[in-house]
Amino acid sequence: MELSLETSERPRRRGREERQRAGGAAPASRPQPRRPFPAVNAVSADQLEAIHLASLQILEEIGLDVLHAEAKAILKAEGAEVDPGSDRVRFPRGLVEAKIGLAPQSFTLHARNPARSVVLGGDHLAFCSVASAPNVADREGGRRPGNRQDYQNLIRLGHTLDSIHLWGGYPVEPADIHASVRHLDALWDMLTLSDKPIHAYSLGRERNLDAIEMARIARGIDQETLEREPSLFTIINSSSPLRLDTPMMEGVIQMARRNQVTVLTPFTLAGAMAPVTIAGAVAQQNAEALAGLVLAQSVRPGSPFAYGGFTSNVDMKTGAPAFGTPEQMKAALVGGQLARRYSLPYRSSNTCAANTIDVQAAYESVFSLWGAVMGGVNLLMHGAGWMEGGLHASFEKMVIDADLLDMITHFLMPFQVNDDELALEAVREVGPGGHFFGCAHTQARYRNAFFAPMISDWRNYETWQEAGSPTGYDRANRLYKERLAAYEEPPMDPAIREELAAFVAKRKEEGGAPTDF
Amino acid sequence: MELSLETSERPRRRGREERQRAGGAAPASRPQPRRPFPAVNAVSADQLEAIHLASLQILEEIGLDVLHAEAKAILKAEGAEVDPGSDRVRFPRGLVEAKIGLAPQSFTLHARNPARSVVLGGDHLAFCSVASAPNVADREGGRRPGNRQDYQNLIRLGHTLDSIHLWGGYPVEPADIHASVRHLDALWDMLTLSDKPIHAYSLGRERNLDAIEMARIARGIDQETLEREPSLFTIINSSSPLRLDTPMMEGVIQMARRNQVTVLTPFTLAGAMAPVTIAGAVAQQNAEALAGLVLAQSVRPGSPFAYGGFTSNVDMKTGAPAFGTPEQMKAALVGGQLARRYSLPYRSSNTCAANTIDVQAAYESVFSLWGAVMGGVNLLMHGAGWMEGGLHASFEKMVIDADLLDMITHFLMPFQVNDDELALEAVREVGPGGHFFGCAHTQARYRNAFFAPMISDWRNYETWQEAGSPTGYDRANRLYKERLAAYEEPPMDPAIREELAAFVAKRKEEGGAPTDF
Repeated sequence: MELSLETSERPRRRGREERQRAGGAAPASRPQPRRPFPAVNAVSADQLEAIHLASLQILEEIGLDVLHAEAKAILKAEGAEVDPGSDRVRFPRGLVEAKIGLAPQSFTLHARNPARSVVLGGDHLAFCSVASAPNVADREGGRRPGNRQDYQNLIRLGHTLDSIHLWGGYPVEPADIHASVRHLDALWDMLTLSDKPIHAYSLGRERNLDAIEMARIARGIDQETLEREPSLFTIINSSSPLRLDTPMMEGVIQMARRNQVTVLTPFTLAGAMAPVTIAGAVAQQNAEALAGLVLAQSVRPGSPFAYGGFTSNVDMKTGAPAFGTPEQMKAALVGGQLARRYSLPYRSSNTCAANTIDVQAAYESVFSLWGAVMGGVNLLMHGAGWMEGGLHASFEKMVIDADLLDMITHFLMPFQVNDDELALEAVREVGPGGHFFGCAHTQARYRNAFFAPMISDWRNYETWQEAGSPTGYDRANRLYKERLAAYEEPPMDPAIREELAAFVAKRKEEGGAPTDF
Repeated sequence: MELSLETSERPRRRGREERQRAGGAAPASRPQPRRPFPAVNAVSADQLEAIHLASLQILEEIGLDVLHAEAKAILKAEGAEVDPGSDRVRFPRGLVEAKIGLAPQSFTLHARNPARSVVLGGDHLAFCSVASAPNVADREGGRRPGNRQDYQNLIRLGHTLDSIHLWGGYPVEPADIHASVRHLDALWDMLTLSDKPIHAYSLGRERNLDAIEMARIARGIDQETLEREPSLFTIINSSSPLRLDTPMMEGVIQMARRNQVTVLTPFTLAGAMAPVTIAGAVAQQNAEALAGLVLAQSVRPGSPFAYGGFTSNVDMKTGAPAFGTPEQMKAALVGGQLARRYSLPYRSSNTCAANTIDVQAAYESVFSLWGAVMGGVNLLMHGAGWMEGGLHASFEKMVIDADLLDMITHFLMPFQVNDDELALEAVREVGPGGHFFGCAHTQARYRNAFFAPMISDWRNYETWQEAGSPTGYDRANRLYKERLAAYEEPPMDPAIREELAAFVAKRKEEGGAPTDF
């Protein structure tokens, strides 16, 4: 099942790539969506300041446990109070304030295909696929543990969907690859089966350095260019409440040192890992994010850093995480306000807690998108395919979500107002009681006038019934298989492919990375 | 099946009402949601002005066909140019501008139960049930033509759902009641089975006057109070493009004359009844809405009037109406901007084109809610139960939508930032690596900390699977039946009930209303 690097597939794949390259340039991707109106502020300037000050108080008075000697040393050198008898680190207010404003407000994350590079920050939006699910599902195969075949197929499917701009991690964990070499095979797949920007997991120094090197090789650039042009990103989750653990600190240090992208996202579910009140959960989220910012900007001032918000709530009856809730929407708006206060790109998510492809999966996702988009999201994690609070990735949901993201992209296109669009002559021509189907203004525009969705079925009831009364789930199931069948691997320079394969082979020979992280 | 007024049910129902009244006051309903942040502007002030000016040009140069002699006479007296040889009426710019600003920015629509009265305008939101569907569906019964039994049951179900604030019309058409007396029986049902504010259809003078009289009797008020306190509303749809037909004009005239509420909503589907460009469709929508405003404010300056936006698009491949589209969302934002420009309450809708309760039904609904709510909607039509582009009302969708409206209500609750909410002491108590479940701050708040949805299933996958893998459709199906079984008729003063019944009986004896409208 696994397509290992040593299979006979390679020559044939190379052949196709060469044909594709010979046939012309890589397909142009659509421009990224940009928010045409200001983000929505859920709290007043005074309230925002109160949340900011509460975070500073948490950082200064309570502090965080930092489980990493080098990180503690770096922070101490910058003026943090490091408790000699414990892992507690307290951040004086002046230290935090000195690090705010150093990171860029906006930057480009480079893909190996330059047409796929994305801007993170400002009014730009970039949509990631689902990431990090331990399980995977489709209708025929049901829910099953993550594996490389499904991992590769989700990459292939996501590659065909233009509204997925980049990879936010492994769409599903390829758990059948040994942990020591999983990052090598999985990044190989991500870099060869797709040409969109990539994410790498912070799971220890060796993996981080391998990922940075693979991103460099895939782009065919030297070390200096890599340091000028961020070419991968990592999500750093604090262990809420108020703890920064070893692999996460390694990630911040190694990514910042090479000027690659850190996205610090506290995992602050209100009522469990954070206070039961949304203001309190957001204040704690903010303290944890600022702690990460201080470390990253201490390692390398100006290194690219994004502010992550993931505050949602738990079901207080059971403790189960809940997503797409009103509380998550509010937290998403305030998180965006805080990111803007610090002039940082803002990361939010498309989430749901549904176990199956039903109304809940759809409405929780759109509610979370509503909070994220109106809150000014720049980097949308888990944009397509996330189910069950992240416990499984779904092939069908990936197609459905991609359609939702496309709809949002069209919603965000600037409203055009000019003589052509105001169509006064058409109104005059058609006149009272007429019909616009046949008029010249319509005829000249009807093909591309409106967004044409993949999933929505707009047939009338009788025709739909005659077709077997298909649901959106049925359509997504058919569509994902059609798209997978039509998938074509994006071209890659054979020399680069060889260098990348050689690197993977060498690192495997060396035994990969330690698995005791 | 029909519960006619003459059945033996009446004495028993009266008995229960009396018991309920003896037992205490009517149940208090929750306060209306209010938008805590400014509505989102999709276009600049200049662009808005260009749309406004295009509408004035349509009104002045092209004009509308007004198929009603009295309306034409009223408009002519105000300075409109009425073509003697046709129905064409042209509205000089000065006439339109003179009528803008006369209608109230906000007013109360009174229910027979004062606790159910709603404010329309300002930052208030009021949510209507589905209205005017010709068919009705639930899972067991399938899709069937509208009938009084289902009509009554939808009223009963909607009455139990607190997030439905008022009736936007008949949830489904009770088509098995003869058209001459349908309005009498249907309004009787609406006024006795529920105590929320009502809508009446503008289907000719007699029906309008009957509805106004029934609203007055149900509230137990005199004519003068009725004229001070709007007690019912009517939706006036222009026959787009640019036509105002007889029953609609009757409605504006009779409602305005008695100071009752007119909501003028052009039915401007871009590409069919309006230009294929959204700016053009909205300019035409605006011209038609302003024409209605001019008539209403000519009949009675200061009479309550709301600006309705219903611009969506058609599927250009088939001509089928599409809902919850990016185009509808954009039009909803701009419609709100125009309503605010004229200081009028804004009406929008919760719509979808789905034929069944699937992801499409959910995402199209939430997208339309997103456009409506962020666009500043005051009166949300079709808030709960709308399916298939309005061609059927669904029992299950009514419960699902009510849950969506509840989520929006909680999303809109003002964000609290104070010491209690910031929870610094709880963060200090729990500290790094701890857990918030058990802390005093959580224990004091967990019961009501978060919104608890009806439909969302947050159980873990295994538990959910053991329970039979229910979908949101399954849960809504079970819930609507449970709620119907638990329904209790709201109390009504026996003398009022008798007066209302006598009015209905008298009007039936007189033969009801003409059916040649």
